[in-house]
Amino acid sequence: MKIKGKVYRTIWFEKNSVKIIDQTKLPHQFTIKDLKTVKDSINAIKKMEVRGAPLIGATAAYGLVLSIIENRDQSFLKKSSEDLIASRPTAINLKWAVDRMMKRLLGVNSNEILKIALEEAKMIVEEDIEFCKNIGLNGLKIIEEIYNRKKDTVNILTHCNAGWLATIDWGTATSPIYHAHQKGIKVHVWVDETRPRNQGANLTSFELNEEGIPNTVIADNTGGILMQRGQVDMCIVGTDRTLFTGHVANKIGTYLKALAAKDNNVPFYVALPSSTIDWSIKDPKDIPIEERDPSELSHIVGLDKNNLLQKVLIYPQKSKALNLAFDITPAKLVTGLITEKGVCEASEKSLKNLFK
Amino acid sequence: MKIKGKVYRTIWFEKNSVKIIDQTKLPHQFTIKDLKTVKDSINAIKKMEVRGAPLIGATAAYGLVLSIIENRDQSFLKKSSEDLIASRPTAINLKWAVDRMMKRLLGVNSNEILKIALEEAKMIVEEDIEFCKNIGLNGLKIIEEIYNRKKDTVNILTHCNAGWLATIDWGTATSPIYHAHQKGIKVHVWVDETRPRNQGANLTSFELNEEGIPNTVIADNTGGILMQRGQVDMCIVGTDRTLFTGHVANKIGTYLKALAAKDNNVPFYVALPSSTIDWSIKDPKDIPIEERDPSELSHIVGLDKNNLLQKVLIYPQKSKALNLAFDITPAKLVTGLITEKGVCEASEKSLKNLFK
Repeated sequence: MKIKGKVYRTIWFEKNSVKIIDQTKLPHQFTIKDLKTVKDSINAIKKMEVRGAPLIGATAAYGLVLSIIENRDQSFLKKSSEDLIASRPTAINLKWAVDRMMKRLLGVNSNEILKIALEEAKMIVEEDIEFCKNIGLNGLKIIEEIYNRKKDTVNILTHCNAGWLATIDWGTATSPIYHAHQKGIKVHVWVDETRPRNQGANLTSFELNEEGIPNTVIADNTGGILMQRGQVDMCIVGTDRTLFTGHVANKIGTYLKALAAKDNNVPFYVALPSSTIDWSIKDPKDIPIEERDPSELSHIVGLDKNNLLQKVLIYPQKSKALNLAFDITPAKLVTGLITEKGVCEASEKSLKNLFK
Repeated sequence: MKIKGKVYRTIWFEKNSVKIIDQTKLPHQFTIKDLKTVKDSINAIKKMEVRGAPLIGATAAYGLVLSIIENRDQSFLKKSSEDLIASRPTAINLKWAVDRMMKRLLGVNSNEILKIALEEAKMIVEEDIEFCKNIGLNGLKIIEEIYNRKKDTVNILTHCNAGWLATIDWGTATSPIYHAHQKGIKVHVWVDETRPRNQGANLTSFELNEEGIPNTVIADNTGGILMQRGQVDMCIVGTDRTLFTGHVANKIGTYLKALAAKDNNVPFYVALPSSTIDWSIKDPKDIPIEERDPSELSHIVGLDKNNLLQKVLIYPQKSKALNLAFDITPAKLVTGLITEKGVCEASEKSLKNLFK
């Protein structure tokens, strides 16, 4: 997708290093960053310079490529894979991508291993783009149906950033929106700012602006009354992990919007590539919920009046804070899952039907 | 209640001027401000230097006192009363306090009018303190019951600031908490930061810190998963206007917490003095919902590394924002209303029973 009119992907391999857009600097600064070692990749994931389940997966896959460039020892590769998996606990694609790479690299001799690793990482990336595109085409039908019925702008609420910046291209939750926009369907997006890291305001609104799609940022508190007033036609969010039983782990606050959608008969969709499905965990209580540093809540970065980035303390100095990164939306609140293979119910039966 | 160990009220009359704590400067600066004219009072309400339904009411009452000091003309007083009522649309106490003052001042001769206005404003203030104290004693019983059952710290979630800073003393939602704490019951408060103006973090956490009550600030998105995990024993919030039919207008985001409380069987209480009850509006759709300046969302004030207050832009420069200040919690989601006369159901029957 475009930034300042130029087409980008979120990650690419060039001259033995991995290039990423440093997402912690957006929207105020657009910076391309070089990852040269597996350690760089792990740090980029931990510091959320890259974020979003699919992009984390791709970064981990390329991280293993960098690990091989550094050191062809199998034990170094194994250690790298473990460190990558441990870098963030909730996103399932991370483990999925690392496991897929490691399976492919098992027993490959050291002359070939770099070529094969690069091939597999590129395949993960290309597949993700293809999946996101198909999610878009499948979700487009739902937006189109609302548009044909309403004959007016379709208002879509989204939470956090499940945009192209969370994937390689297109995004998951935004892909149907981009496809609808390109088809000439009028859409307007309510963007939850998504505290504490404001990925909605900083990333989703930013990327929608760059593509020329009308959008309005709102406090996370606002979705409820907009739905009460009939100003939301549908919700689409992404997910970091969807259990095969249909329960959805996503950015903290998603659950509250799903409750409001249910209470106001607003359809609530979750968009995901099948790599985000967790086929092993049944009970949502068993999903590890990442707890991040409280300073992400108490401090915030913005542009001061001299256009310089400043980090400021916004809480009382004595106050404690708790920073949980995800919550669980029970399957009962999900209208449908928009996947690369089609739209299905958030249930074990439907998911197995589509994917097994 | 206390700030830095010294006991304060939020508003008082001294030497022909009204003193307030400038709440837009909290928690980083503690400033007492002088209001000398009715215009000063209106500005203090509009800029939210004073906020919270009961305190807005008291400020308006004292605003009329200042108006009389400025100009004893009845037409000036009438204009002042209209301007005060128009200064913020949602809080019902504002109109209630102005109407009460004007009724008392009707036909009073100009020799006596200042004395009588001052008397009535003081009565409004003292009544509010008495009401808040009784709300506390009534709510205390609910907390005590949970404590006796659980035999461990009672975790209470609150939204925005319905603390003593929103009233004259004690607060509404916080009054039961202060009373429980003073009685030696262990309480811990989850404080929603309450975007966009962060009154939860800036004011509620601040005042709880100053009283030595354990509290943790959380993003507004967090209450859902805490309730899913059983980490919230009850919610108590305030209200800017409660319809006689039991529907509650309060700070935007309240509705989302009430939905989560219902979904997880967590009791959800609203604390209010009866001056906050609207006996005229039946349908929540008829409540005017204030729309405030979008810059309250896109900009934020905090302390930089040199301990100076800085205002920074936290949204993309091109982004639009919508800033609705309140939402409606339907009566069906409210476990009970904690009033100065007792706890009752959020229904027309119960409210009329208690107050008419």
